[in-house]
Amino acid sequence: MSQFKPYSIYGIIGYPLGQTLSPLIHTTSFKDQNIPAVLVAWPTPPDQVENFVKSVRLLNIRGCCVTIPHKQTVIPFLDEVTDRVKKVGAANLIYWDGDKLCGDNTDVKGFMEPLEKDPLPKEYKQVLLLGAGGAARAAVVGLQALGYTDITVTDIVDNLPATLAKEFNLKTVSWDKRGEVDAQLVVNSTPLGMLGKYESETPYNIEWFKGKGVAYDIVYTPYFTRFRLDAEKAGWKSISGREMFIGQANAQYKIWTGNDLSDKAKQAVVDALAG
Amino acid sequence: MSQFKPYSIYGIIGYPLGQTLSPLIHTTSFKDQNIPAVLVAWPTPPDQVENFVKSVRLLNIRGCCVTIPHKQTVIPFLDEVTDRVKKVGAANLIYWDGDKLCGDNTDVKGFMEPLEKDPLPKEYKQVLLLGAGGAARAAVVGLQALGYTDITVTDIVDNLPATLAKEFNLKTVSWDKRGEVDAQLVVNSTPLGMLGKYESETPYNIEWFKGKGVAYDIVYTPYFTRFRLDAEKAGWKSISGREMFIGQANAQYKIWTGNDLSDKAKQAVVDALAG
Repeated sequence: MSQFKPYSIYGIIGYPLGQTLSPLIHTTSFKDQNIPAVLVAWPTPPDQVENFVKSVRLLNIRGCCVTIPHKQTVIPFLDEVTDRVKKVGAANLIYWDGDKLCGDNTDVKGFMEPLEKDPLPKEYKQVLLLGAGGAARAAVVGLQALGYTDITVTDIVDNLPATLAKEFNLKTVSWDKRGEVDAQLVVNSTPLGMLGKYESETPYNIEWFKGKGVAYDIVYTPYFTRFRLDAEKAGWKSISGREMFIGQANAQYKIWTGNDLSDKAKQAVVDALAG
Repeated sequence: MSQFKPYSIYGIIGYPLGQTLSPLIHTTSFKDQNIPAVLVAWPTPPDQVENFVKSVRLLNIRGCCVTIPHKQTVIPFLDEVTDRVKKVGAANLIYWDGDKLCGDNTDVKGFMEPLEKDPLPKEYKQVLLLGAGGAARAAVVGLQALGYTDITVTDIVDNLPATLAKEFNLKTVSWDKRGEVDAQLVVNSTPLGMLGKYESETPYNIEWFKGKGVAYDIVYTPYFTRFRLDAEKAGWKSISGREMFIGQANAQYKIWTGNDLSDKAKQAVVDALAG
């Protein structure tokens, strides 16, 4: 009895959740660090988010990753959220602070991590942000925290960029004209290129990559998206959404356990995406 | 990705659940048999049973042990229950049959197991059953399945034995007169002797153990209850509730996984109770 430690349950909520690597990365790290805990996938339709949070409380679930489409809608059912959540308007993490069920956002930190670890040349000042939905908000907050002031946003949905631009003081461009924007950092926050129905697509034509620059894809399945392949062909560097995924997961894990993810857990994600 | 198997979550629901050995026995066996699953304790107050079953469905919990005080009250919230549940009037197990959430009862099987493994002498025909509550019902069904027809039941609560006696055709005796009943098998289904506020008590005075016989205690914490110690002092044999606990747990595990519990899991319970 003395040696047996009861398990803690963590989960990820989203819908659908077919491609999630969160159970792999967190459960592997729990195991590596001898923490008796597992993280499981809970695909949950939008009309069940309130009931889901009630279940989290009732079953004493110790934490949750939150992903599309629940990052905004989960917020009203939590007791408290951090300033990061208020700024981004989205929570990707549920955790307990004492008896309070709280929301936080680690997407910003995850987005910034590859740009902090390997900073871009100073002359790369102009940013084009493709997509103005939920993922774009974390990117904007991260970019501005890194000092970028010249950000142009576009989306295939006409009215989205204006809303984001107004809130964060960005420029906008229509989706049709996005190839005309001068930019040395192009960020894809759309689902174009993602495994599934959009896999063969790209948000940016290859002939638009001019001079030198960096293409940052938030999509991480597949590891080599068409967007990144095109950028590299055109002589640009590229950053995979994998780095952001690992970065945001590490920040989640740290809030829950106080630890960084084990190296083996991070490698498991690298292997899974390579496989 | 290919090697990582997502975990399944199981639990035990009861209130309170301080002493439960179910997480230990099931989680140990899952681990020994390389089944990616854990069983955790969910102490759940009575007014939350309905919400609990909703959570089981929403979070796709793969199974639950059910213990006091929820064995009866959980039944209306399930899709189906087995004939065993109908007969005993109690479910100690929740499992999925396809997309139906079902209840079963393995307490009867657990109760019978020590008496089947090591049958009593044929001349031990008379049974005295101490306690007429939920646990007594499983004992009665088990005793009758084993062929015992001469069963006398008593309880400190006056009206309980009559109800049970009527349904199962038993004799009754008042709690004050229980020492006068001739019996070679005395079964304790009361909480008297259990770790906690009743630990120093016993349902049966030592001078009442006459001749030869067997004292079967459903209580298993502590391993040596005062009831069993007194019986052994008086020259009787005794059976610990530990055997019933392991028996009912094994039957639960078999319904969930198709396997018997690992030897190590059973030994873990033995060690925990000895420790």
